[in-house]
Amino acid sequence: MEIERFVSLSQGEWRSMRSGHSLAFQQFEEVLSTIQIKKLSLKDADVVKLIKSSPNIINKPLSPFRIDWKSESDWSDENSPNLSTGSCLLIPIPNSHQKGILLRSLGYTEPIRTISNYCFLSDGTFQLETKYQNTIAEERIWFISKTVRCRASVTKSAESLGILQTSFASEVKIIQA
Amino acid sequence: MEIERFVSLSQGEWRSMRSGHSLAFQQFEEVLSTIQIKKLSLKDADVVKLIKSSPNIINKPLSPFRIDWKSESDWSDENSPNLSTGSCLLIPIPNSHQKGILLRSLGYTEPIRTISNYCFLSDGTFQLETKYQNTIAEERIWFISKTVRCRASVTKSAESLGILQTSFASEVKIIQA
Repeated sequence: MEIERFVSLSQGEWRSMRSGHSLAFQQFEEVLSTIQIKKLSLKDADVVKLIKSSPNIINKPLSPFRIDWKSESDWSDENSPNLSTGSCLLIPIPNSHQKGILLRSLGYTEPIRTISNYCFLSDGTFQLETKYQNTIAEERIWFISKTVRCRASVTKSAESLGILQTSFASEVKIIQA
Repeated sequence: MEIERFVSLSQGEWRSMRSGHSLAFQQFEEVLSTIQIKKLSLKDADVVKLIKSSPNIINKPLSPFRIDWKSESDWSDENSPNLSTGSCLLIPIPNSHQKGILLRSLGYTEPIRTISNYCFLSDGTFQLETKYQNTIAEERIWFISKTVRCRASVTKSAESLGILQTSFASEVKIIQA
C-alpha cells in the first residue's frame, strides 16, 4: 500500500522550518519546530478508541501513527503564545491503493477531531483535504530525498472558498526511527 | 496541450510572497515581488533568436512567454542588493501532451541560458528540472484557484546531490492579462 510506505518514510524525528503567508496582509510568519512521527500498532488503546468512536468505518485501518511537536513562532500575542507543543493521532483507512480517509484526533487549522480525504499524485505526493467548521485545509507532502520532505498547505474559508493563508515547511530528518 | 493552458492561466501580473529556507543554517529569507507574465508570438524576434541558437530542437515550440520581475528581499549584502529586477524568456517545446523541454534565456539559480525538462503531474502540477553548472533546481507550480498559484523549489548541489535550499512562493494575480 502506498500509505504504508509514506508512513514508514515519515517515521523519525524531524527539524522543521515553516513559513506562513497571510495573503491579504502580505505578512510572513516563521516557525521552527521539532516533530516526532511514530508508527503505532492497530492494537494500541488510543487507536482502538478513535476507530470505535468514528462513525461508518467500513474498510481496514492501516499504519496508524502519532505526531508530537514543539514549535516556536516569531509571532505571538495573548491568544497565541510563540511556544507551543501538541500531539495528534492519525489513522489512515485506504479504500484503494492511492486513496482513502484519514482519522485525526486533532485537526491542523482547528483543534477538533476530523476525517480527511487523502490521495497520492502520480509522483507519490501525498495530498490531503480536511473540511473543518469554518475552514477547508489542503495539504500536500512530498519527499525530495529520504531525509528531506516538503509540506505545503492552503487554508480556505469554508463559506466563501477565499484563500486565507498558505504555508510551506521544509523538514529534515535528524533521528531515524 | 497542457502547457498552453498553463501559460494562459499564468498570464497577467502577480504579487508574490516568497520564503527561502537555508536548511543547514535554519535561516529564513523573505522576498516580496511583482511578476509580469506575458505570452509572446512564435514570430517574436527574441523567440526566433533563442530557438535558432539552441541545438537539436526537433519538436515544435509552443506558447513562448516572458517573465519580468521586481523583487525586494529582507537579506542584503554587497554582492546581492535587496532590490532586484530581471527578465527571462521561456519557450516550451512539448514532446508529448504531458512532457517536454523548456528553453530559458536566463536560469533561476544561475544566470545562464538553460534547457529544463518539464512534466505535468496527475493533478496538473507543473514540474520542472534544470541542471546548471553547480546546482540542480527542481520547481513545481500549481494553481489553487484561477488567481492564486504556489511555486515550490529545491536547489541541490550538482556534485553531491545534497539539498542546499528550498523556497516557496504564494502568488496572487492582481491584473488579468
